[in-house]
Amino acid sequence: MIEITINPGAKIINVPSGTLLLDVLKQAKISIVTTCGGQGSCGKCRVKVSSTAIKGSLLNLTEKKQLSEEEIKEGFRLACQCHLYHNSTITIPSSVLMRNNNSKIEEKSISHLSHYEFKPVIPIKKYFLRLNPPTLKNQSSDWTRIKDELNRVAKIKKERWFIAPDILGNVSQLLRDNNYGMTIVLYKNEVISVEPGNTSKEMYGVAFDIGTTTIAGYLIDFSTGKQIVAEAGSNPQYIYGDDVISRVGFAGKNATNRNIIQQELISFLNQIITSLSRKTGINLSRIYFAVLVGNTAMHHFLWSLPTESLAFSPYIPVLTDEIFKEARDLPDLCLIPHAKVYSTPNVSAYIGGDIIADLIDINIWGKNNNILMVDLGTNGEIVLKGDDKIWACSAAAGPAFEGARISSGMRAIRGAIDRIIITEHKIRYQVIEQTRAAGLCGSGIIDLIASLLKLQLIKSDGRLVNQEECPKGISEQIKERIVKECKSNKFLIVPKEQSAEGKPIFLTQKDIREVQLAKGAVRAGISILLEQARLKKDDIDEVLLAGSFGSLLDKDNTLAIGLIPHISSEKIFSIGNAAGRGAIKLLLSEDMRNMAESLSQKVHYVELSAQHSFSETFTKSMIFNLER
Amino acid sequence: MIEITINPGAKIINVPSGTLLLDVLKQAKISIVTTCGGQGSCGKCRVKVSSTAIKGSLLNLTEKKQLSEEEIKEGFRLACQCHLYHNSTITIPSSVLMRNNNSKIEEKSISHLSHYEFKPVIPIKKYFLRLNPPTLKNQSSDWTRIKDELNRVAKIKKERWFIAPDILGNVSQLLRDNNYGMTIVLYKNEVISVEPGNTSKEMYGVAFDIGTTTIAGYLIDFSTGKQIVAEAGSNPQYIYGDDVISRVGFAGKNATNRNIIQQELISFLNQIITSLSRKTGINLSRIYFAVLVGNTAMHHFLWSLPTESLAFSPYIPVLTDEIFKEARDLPDLCLIPHAKVYSTPNVSAYIGGDIIADLIDINIWGKNNNILMVDLGTNGEIVLKGDDKIWACSAAAGPAFEGARISSGMRAIRGAIDRIIITEHKIRYQVIEQTRAAGLCGSGIIDLIASLLKLQLIKSDGRLVNQEECPKGISEQIKERIVKECKSNKFLIVPKEQSAEGKPIFLTQKDIREVQLAKGAVRAGISILLEQARLKKDDIDEVLLAGSFGSLLDKDNTLAIGLIPHISSEKIFSIGNAAGRGAIKLLLSEDMRNMAESLSQKVHYVELSAQHSFSETFTKSMIFNLER
Repeated sequence: MIEITINPGAKIINVPSGTLLLDVLKQAKISIVTTCGGQGSCGKCRVKVSSTAIKGSLLNLTEKKQLSEEEIKEGFRLACQCHLYHNSTITIPSSVLMRNNNSKIEEKSISHLSHYEFKPVIPIKKYFLRLNPPTLKNQSSDWTRIKDELNRVAKIKKERWFIAPDILGNVSQLLRDNNYGMTIVLYKNEVISVEPGNTSKEMYGVAFDIGTTTIAGYLIDFSTGKQIVAEAGSNPQYIYGDDVISRVGFAGKNATNRNIIQQELISFLNQIITSLSRKTGINLSRIYFAVLVGNTAMHHFLWSLPTESLAFSPYIPVLTDEIFKEARDLPDLCLIPHAKVYSTPNVSAYIGGDIIADLIDINIWGKNNNILMVDLGTNGEIVLKGDDKIWACSAAAGPAFEGARISSGMRAIRGAIDRIIITEHKIRYQVIEQTRAAGLCGSGIIDLIASLLKLQLIKSDGRLVNQEECPKGISEQIKERIVKECKSNKFLIVPKEQSAEGKPIFLTQKDIREVQLAKGAVRAGISILLEQARLKKDDIDEVLLAGSFGSLLDKDNTLAIGLIPHISSEKIFSIGNAAGRGAIKLLLSEDMRNMAESLSQKVHYVELSAQHSFSETFTKSMIFNLER
Repeated sequence: MIEITINPGAKIINVPSGTLLLDVLKQAKISIVTTCGGQGSCGKCRVKVSSTAIKGSLLNLTEKKQLSEEEIKEGFRLACQCHLYHNSTITIPSSVLMRNNNSKIEEKSISHLSHYEFKPVIPIKKYFLRLNPPTLKNQSSDWTRIKDELNRVAKIKKERWFIAPDILGNVSQLLRDNNYGMTIVLYKNEVISVEPGNTSKEMYGVAFDIGTTTIAGYLIDFSTGKQIVAEAGSNPQYIYGDDVISRVGFAGKNATNRNIIQQELISFLNQIITSLSRKTGINLSRIYFAVLVGNTAMHHFLWSLPTESLAFSPYIPVLTDEIFKEARDLPDLCLIPHAKVYSTPNVSAYIGGDIIADLIDINIWGKNNNILMVDLGTNGEIVLKGDDKIWACSAAAGPAFEGARISSGMRAIRGAIDRIIITEHKIRYQVIEQTRAAGLCGSGIIDLIASLLKLQLIKSDGRLVNQEECPKGISEQIKERIVKECKSNKFLIVPKEQSAEGKPIFLTQKDIREVQLAKGAVRAGISILLEQARLKKDDIDEVLLAGSFGSLLDKDNTLAIGLIPHISSEKIFSIGNAAGRGAIKLLLSEDMRNMAESLSQKVHYVELSAQHSFSETFTKSMIFNLER
């Protein structure tokens, strides 16, 4: 191996001795002008090579023809002709460098991030201070007195400490009521609270995963770095619609609505915080840091940012950067006013901070294989990491996988069928909490369709067959479950006598179409990302299914319906609530917060609606058993 | 001259060859332990001298007696015995160094500040931006789009810009309503406002001088750096008492009162701002920076900081540092929420930011002579600059000089006698706005007492003589004005027929005592500062009388009553409202804001009540004609 340094940029790359200079540059992901495609006929790929290297490789005839005496003396070579045998330094003239194209792709590379890793570091420090009472000989102000003692206790030479006037407003009395003893709470060099007595052991943080459907909160003890308790509930915005677009419609009407939707969200966060506090007996005022993770719409709702332009083409967020503020900046949030509040950055209107939190959790920048991550919630977000870049897109899957818009659909709660197996003779299903079946949740629907596909009762175009079309071997019991209704069929899963609500549970043709639309959108997104990354399905080393729906899925059935490309089921992993775990990591590590900001800029967002091939790919992707 | 390096600290000093080591240290302002006062008997002043130096000076008998063989070998000498003849390095053991004492005095030197000067620099920048509308090919968020354009227009490579979520909340609509054109208002790299259209020329700031009695506001056009208009009125806290202590009594009762007093102050600032805006037709939302100057109590009232410990010994402020926040941190202040608000730092409970503003205005750090500044308001603040240090104290003069607690006293408004001359035969006075006399204001009282002292109708101990004690030459007209009342006398200035309110205007014995108390306090303060600075009155090069009272004073009469030490009246200057001018300089210069912070730490505050000599000096200082 020889070491090649490439300027401008002093990029260093190791290649086998004898490598063609043009290939070295390709490997270094540096594009240069090669009009003739590397045949030596255009002579444009002139680059300067350090003299040591020239010695090892004599000029060939093509080079002698293309280069002037002057250029040869200066060390110029044609990149497409020159092989390198020694450690060399290459200098590419700016006229040869395809700067724009190159630098943009360069920018999005994540290879320089690979050495970062998650190590928990508590963001808050507390010190118990006992001050000398003031005298006529020492008339320092309360704050100066505190700073001096803080420098002494924190063993810091001379830090510039900051404090807000409203905190100072309490300090004076607090000191005098407590014999000049108090605990000071610091975020970096900023005092965020003062407390009577010695409370230095009580330090907590809270991480929120704000989903379109569900909001979860996790209380973390900063003294151990461990989660103590979690709490979750339905997003109260549900009343304005189950999808983001309806809620944007409500919020966008006027500023009052925007504030209403913000207030409802904050009230719900307060409910969770209060409940976490009640369960553990922990004083709310000891929670000093909150991390808020959510998709771009939830993020905008929370900060009362207008969402109208999120919903309509060209889908523009107001802000994609992280927000790092204080609790007082979120009206009526029940934390202390100067508690730190951090919202993850977003990538685009439809790839939000929740996906960034997923990526943080799976340590995507540290992986050296090709990874496909699919987060299936109300939308389907797809991330593909190939080589040293990350691509992402959002598929408008709609809430079908959450049971919405399905005739007997429901969420994965008590009474939902979450597993089904149908054989030629029999139907068997499993109901959450072993009660009577009330409906089908997402994983049940996938199982059901997969089974019916296997039995050929659903054709690959999605049509549910008539009884007479059933393949041989299908028993009468199963056949009879196919019921004609108007022009299409439906399949009986639970007769009314056995159902929870006395109504039969069917899978209708329309239900199948809904699932086809959803899976088609996700699958088309995957195809387009693979195209962008110039990868084939077999290049994928791991498929990660994130989100609660993902963790319920049966891998084989997921493959069977063609939601993801057909690869070995051993490569598929359900990773559950990665966003929640990512939120906790973000709470416990400034490095990870910086990583989130980097990732939000590095992820190469692909707007599906702007892809010419999208509608064709989408239509094709609706077909079940695509690859059989 | 030889060069001596002193460790620890590697301080270098040049002294004549043969200088006593102890004198070298004194000159370097380094104090060491010398229990015997330098007689060589205590042997404590052991310091290590580099060998070269030892060669030049043999040990004397005292040293031989005090130092061990070991110490002599190591190079120890007694500082009080050893003379230095060559360039040497001295090392002072920490046990010998009087660390605290020394380092504190060192720190307070202002000589390193001398090259700073006031140069107006507008703190705010405005840029008109016209953005490219978003497309599916360029889905950057609104904020990213703004940042990119800002970098282009401001010709900055890659600045990290900041914006608050509440400003961003308006950006989206504003851009879309204005064809993607808008003006952005910056303080450093922070967006503090966004405005539709091109408003880049409209930029204003406001400076406030918040006095105990009067509040003044000055509107500054940032595009020219000039004052456009000013406005003043009475501090509304007047209803809680004319002095600070009564107001502290009210505010200290409970948190509600503290908020009331804050709110009244802010309402009044709003009145001034509104009036400045109305007079000029300038939109309030175009005022981006406010400087607030006031004494420590006004400062604490404004920021709702508790003031109780200001009022009672040991007189401790909550905060002496500058406050640099936003308008939204002062509840209901009528500026835009993110307008910058700066409050000057304080020195101590009774030397506040108004005195710092005085010092900024007079460029005290740049002067190379000895200056005495007296700011006479409700209190008398005294600042003495000698050599490279500044001393300050506050004399509890009370409001006598403002006409309060004087039988016929009043403020310097319409109807007040502000000038009086009394000769053996005649009394002549001048009334503000040439109307009938309603009372005496401060300058009138000083004139009056000075005249009566000159005529020996008031003795140097302050006693107003009886008619029969009058010196020869005093006419009957004047004599008759001395009226007996109980055990003391009073002097008639305006008979009831000539007065505005039909009541005679007298100077009573009690009035004289009030003035004696006030002038005694101020004069004692001056004496003690001179003592601290080891200066004599004749060392004073300039006396600056600050404040509106100071600017009305007759210099000779000020000297005559002994308010200031008796020096040539040519050295006395009335500098008027220096604090107001200082506030404007602080608005227009970050250097000056930094200077204010430095000065607040450099000023050597002298607590008069902690001086053993104070009561004696005070009693002596009540005598008129102290130096005659």
